[in-house]
Amino acid sequence: LKIDIGNETRTIIAGIAETYTPEAMKGKIILVVANLKPAKIRGVESHGMLLAVSGEKGHSLITTDSRVKPGSKAK
Amino acid sequence: LKIDIGNETRTIIAGIAETYTPEAMKGKIILVVANLKPAKIRGVESHGMLLAVSGEKGHSLITTDSRVKPGSKAK
Repeated sequence: LKIDIGNETRTIIAGIAETYTPEAMKGKIILVVANLKPAKIRGVESHGMLLAVSGEKGHSLITTDSRVKPGSKAK
Repeated sequence: LKIDIGNETRTIIAGIAETYTPEAMKGKIILVVANLKPAKIRGVESHGMLLAVSGEKGHSLITTDSRVKPGSKAK
């Protein structure tokens, strides 16, 4: 995934394809952990981690209750 | 706020009243940091922290993209 985190675009590898199509991900606001060391996942360098809840029906991404600016910080 | 985190109910103090009415909070799924030491906020002990993004239009709580069980863990 290419994710706009406000001041830059990050490549982040995530195992959510069973639940989310690439089309469904477009424009979605999600919560990302951006202060991690890059890690190789399936041969590609991942520059962050997205957060999700895993349940019986697959994954549910962590998002915001209303539309916010990309790069906004959760605290 | 009294928040069901799956195995227990926590009292958490949060400054979101400008954006969210008590009624609007009922049944809402939100992301909570539950492994903190209790802290006194405005004289009341808070047993966790909820996550939100602050913007021009007030706060936007961090939630899930679809309904999940209370107590589910984000990772």
